[in-house]
Formats: sequence, C-alpha cells, structure tokens
Amino acid sequence: MLSTIYEPIQEDLVKVEDSLSLVSRTDFPWLSELLDYSLKSGGKRIRPALVLLSGKFYSYNLGYLLPMATAVELMHAATLIHDDAIDKSSIRRGRPTINKLWGEEQAVLLGDYLFAKAGETVTETQNVPVIRLFSQTLETITSGELNQAVNAFNLEQTRQQYLRRISGKTASLFSLATESGVILSQAPKKVVKALKEYGDNLGIAFQIVDDILDFVGTEEEMGKPIGSDLAQGTLTLPAMLILELYPEDNLIKELFNNRYMPDEDRQAYIKRVIELVVNSPIVEQCYATASDYCAKASQSLKELPDNASHRALLELADYVIDRKR
Amino acid sequence: MLSTIYEPIQEDLVKVEDSLSLVSRTDFPWLSELLDYSLKSGGKRIRPALVLLSGKFYSYNLGYLLPMATAVELMHAATLIHDDAIDKSSIRRGRPTINKLWGEEQAVLLGDYLFAKAGETVTETQNVPVIRLFSQTLETITSGELNQAVNAFNLEQTRQQYLRRISGKTASLFSLATESGVILSQAPKKVVKALKEYGDNLGIAFQIVDDILDFVGTEEEMGKPIGSDLAQGTLTLPAMLILELYPEDNLIKELFNNRYMPDEDRQAYIKRVIELVVNSPIVEQCYATASDYCAKASQSLKELPDNASHRALLELADYVIDRKR
Repeated sequence: MLSTIYEPIQEDLVKVEDSLSLVSRTDFPWLSELLDYSLKSGGKRIRPALVLLSGKFYSYNLGYLLPMATAVELMHAATLIHDDAIDKSSIRRGRPTINKLWGEEQAVLLGDYLFAKAGETVTETQNVPVIRLFSQTLETITSGELNQAVNAFNLEQTRQQYLRRISGKTASLFSLATESGVILSQAPKKVVKALKEYGDNLGIAFQIVDDILDFVGTEEEMGKPIGSDLAQGTLTLPAMLILELYPEDNLIKELFNNRYMPDEDRQAYIKRVIELVVNSPIVEQCYATASDYCAKASQSLKELPDNASHRALLELADYVIDRKR
Repeated sequence: MLSTIYEPIQEDLVKVEDSLSLVSRTDFPWLSELLDYSLKSGGKRIRPALVLLSGKFYSYNLGYLLPMATAVELMHAATLIHDDAIDKSSIRRGRPTINKLWGEEQAVLLGDYLFAKAGETVTETQNVPVIRLFSQTLETITSGELNQAVNAFNLEQTRQQYLRRISGKTASLFSLATESGVILSQAPKKVVKALKEYGDNLGIAFQIVDDILDFVGTEEEMGKPIGSDLAQGTLTLPAMLILELYPEDNLIKELFNNRYMPDEDRQAYIKRVIELVVNSPIVEQCYATASDYCAKASQSLKELPDNASHRALLELADYVIDRKR
C-alpha cells in the first residue's frame, strides 16, 4: 500500500498537501474554486513522494525539498488538465474533468496558470540549475505529447519510438523528481546519476503499466473509460504486440484506418481488441517488460546506503507493477 | 517608425532574432516547422526592445539581457498561440493561425512548449528574483485572461474592472520587460520603480489602443478581422462608453444578450456597432485616456539621465498612440 511505502516521509507529504491548498487561495473566488477542484483530486502523489524520498540520502533540507515537491505536482496537474482538454476527455479519477465542467477555454488557461505557479514555486529552491532542469523537463514532456499527437492513428511505429515517447511524456517528470530531490540534498554526482536512472526507469515502467491498465483495468478502478488510448489513436505496447501477433486482418488496423467511423462501431471494435488482448499472452509480456524496467530502477540504487527511504523506493518499484489504478 | 525608435539597440535586437531562430532547431522536424512559423511572425518585438532599452541606463550586460529579451518574446508568442486556440481565431498578422493550420491540440501543446522554452531561457539570467518575477507575470497574465473569459458577455462591468483586466493580460508583460531589464543592469531601486511604472502605464495605453483599433482599424492593417472583441463578448473601453452614451435600446446589449444568434446576424450587429463608435466622440475619448497613460509613462522617466534610450522610450510612448497596427 502506498501509505506504508510513504511512511518515511508521511509528515512532509502532509506539508505538500498544505502547500497545494495554499495555491488555491487567490483574489478571485472562481479561480480558487477551479484550483481547489484540480488540486484535491485524489492523486497518488508519487512525484512529490519521489522528491522527498530522494532527498533523504544526504542533507534533507525541507526548505528546498517542499517547494520542489509541490512544484512537480503542480506541473503534473497542469499537464493532466491540458491532456484532458485536448483529448476532450470527460472523466478522470472518477470525476468530471475541468473541460467538461468549465469548458476547454478555462481548462487551457487554468493549465497555463498552474504551469506559472509551478514555475514560481520551484524558484524557492534558490537553485538555478534545478530551476532550469524544471523548465527543460516541461519541454521534454510537451514534445513527447506533441510526438504522440503527430503520430496518432499511425500504425508504423517502432518500439523504440514508443519508448522514446513515454520517456518524454512520463519518465522525464519521474526523473526530474528524483534528480532534483537528490541535487537539493547536496548529494555527490554519482548518487545524483543513480537516482536519476531510478526515476527514468520507474517512469517508463509506470507508463507501460498505465498502458496495460487501459486494456485490462476496470473503469471503476481507473476512474476513466478503458480503451481510451485506442479511441485516441495512440499506439501503446499492448497494441503493438497485437499487431505483431496478428499482422493480417488486424482489428487495430481497421480501427486506425477508419478513424472517422461512427462512435458505436468504434466502441464495438475497441471492445473486441480489448478481449483479444486480455485473452492473449500479451498482457504477461508487457508486464514482463515493465518489470525489467523496475528491476533496472532498483538495480541503480544498489550502492546507496540501506535506509528507510532506500527500502521505500524499492517497494515503490514493486507497487508500480502491482497497482490496479 | 519603430526602426528609428529601436536605433540605440538595433544590433542587439538582431541577436534576439538569432536567439529566437535557434529555438526552432529541435530533434523533430515537425516541431521545428511549427516553431519557425510561430516565431517568424512579423511581430513588432516591442517587449524585447523594452528589455534592452531599459537595460541601457546602468551596466548593460548582454549576457543577461539577451536571454531576458528572448524569454519575454517567447512568453508573448506562447500566450498568443493559446489565445487564438481558445478563441478559435483563424487569422493573425495576416496569416492563418497555428490552430487553423495544425489544429487546436497542436496549438495548446506548442504554447506549452514555448512557455517551457521561455522558462528555460530566463534561467540564463542567473537571477532568481527575476526568474521568479517571470513566472509571477505569467500567473498575472493568465488570471487576466481567465477573468476575461469568466466575464465574457457580461454587460455589468466597471471601468475599474476593465483596467484591472488589461493590466493583467497586457501591461504586466510590458512592466516585466522594463523592470527585468533595469534589474539586470544593476540599477538602484528608485530607477527600477520608475521603469516598472513606465512599463505598466505604457502597457495599459497599448491595450486601450488595441481595443480602439478593433473598432476603427482595417482588417488589412491589423492582419485580423475587426470587431473580434465584440464577437467574443469582450467588453472593452469603446464598448463601455457606447453603453454609457446609449443606455436604452443599446445594440451591444442586444448582441451580448443573444450570444447564440446566427453568425450572419451577429456580423450585421457588429458592423452597426462599429459604425456607431466610429461616428461618435468615443474614439477621441478613448485615445485621450490612452494618451493620459502614455503621459504618465513618460513622466515616470523624468529623473533618469538623458540618453538615447531615454529618448527612445519617450518616442515609443508616442508610437503606441499613433500606431495603426
């Protein structure tokens, strides 16, 4: 369970929640309402937890780590709001999205506001290289997302392209969290490198599992419709393996080559692809790939001192595979 | 003419253009194309010019001023791309918008990428308070835009609300440009305050003139349709004065109270409102208000040394009133 894994930093995670609550206090009641709705969303808070846990190996300075942890969660919240607006998603974490409730216009501007707030918050670290890394990560995330948009409904994608895309859109923020946490605790370069590698690999595993859950999860657990990647024309690892397994008459090919089919037909296709995936060895293969990345993540920590945070990071790698949402 | 006003910083403005060109060099050809299109847009480059001119009073350090000037232009470009996406505008500066050519999805993500690039670029100033000011300004701009969105088609707005809104969405970036330019040249606090006030007042005047030109300009000069504020339900100063002048049976009331009228009818209404404004003393009154702000702007420079930059800033205040686009 996450709360057990978070145990070494539990008190300080509460302070992150407090900082996030403070963001909602503005001069405009309507803005405060939007912010409050976005930031009290029942997220797992993995990214701020990674900042804090990574900061525990050397000089743990909450004055720097707390704004850093808050800033990564703000950036994450902003990217989700823009993703939902772009995809016209109507539900996330079991609740209507900002674009569904307040419209796309507000969603775009609210995301911008949160990017700005994240950028302001990260300056409290007083560390220009870390602030720079923060903006560079947003560049990487956004080009990963753009890459996904450009390649929507494209059937000719390699696994390497897939890995590059998920590295950009997901793993980069995980590794920002671990790398910045460890830099801000004045750790030596070797340790920074180790934690960065951990974050990178954990993030890739996390996204692969996300992509698996979009096939095998339930709408109830996930808090959003299953099969949404297929609906948006995003080719993920399970879909790639299905294409390799059945190169002829493949349902995904039909789905992607007829992107303007009626909604009802699309849903029927998606349901059939999901059945195909669930009843194939593909799910297991994808989990094996994700586990490999988690093993790499854990491996990169092997020279770090054995402390509560070290153990928490190892448990987190297991959690990423076992999670149901 | 702007090129004459920019004379004291002409060489360095060319370097800003070079820096903007470098932003377009990425690993992804499709991204480079989008960036190139957005950044070579024929903009007036007033904001980078303000950074450079404001940096000319004390220690002019191009190593800091060049990234600052580039960053404010990148932020400006990003906000325009998001504005166009939100308003579904199809033309800006005489060319199709990003959302028109590549779709809203790409426009939102490209704007995000440019915000990130701006944030990265500003870290080259190595000045944490300036970096912080940069993010705070984006917060102010975005809450100004959100404020405008929330108040769309609202007829009950005071002039104070209007001024607050345009201070947020426009003047804040002008004053960021002047304030950061002067801070980065190690000027004393009194001078920082003077240049900040100059930027604030110039920005308010600039937006008032923009709002006038949306009535009295031509599509050819403006590079976008006239009357777009009315079409989007944005109440600007000329419209407010028309409402005060004709409180009964007012065309703007009919227009705003029937926001879902057929496009053709809306265009006819807008045309009639424009005629009403053009043939009234309102345009002159609005220009008088804008001139007052420009006079305040110039006034705030009165204790600064008399040099080429000082004169350029005074000329810029005149230009803001006289400009036709």
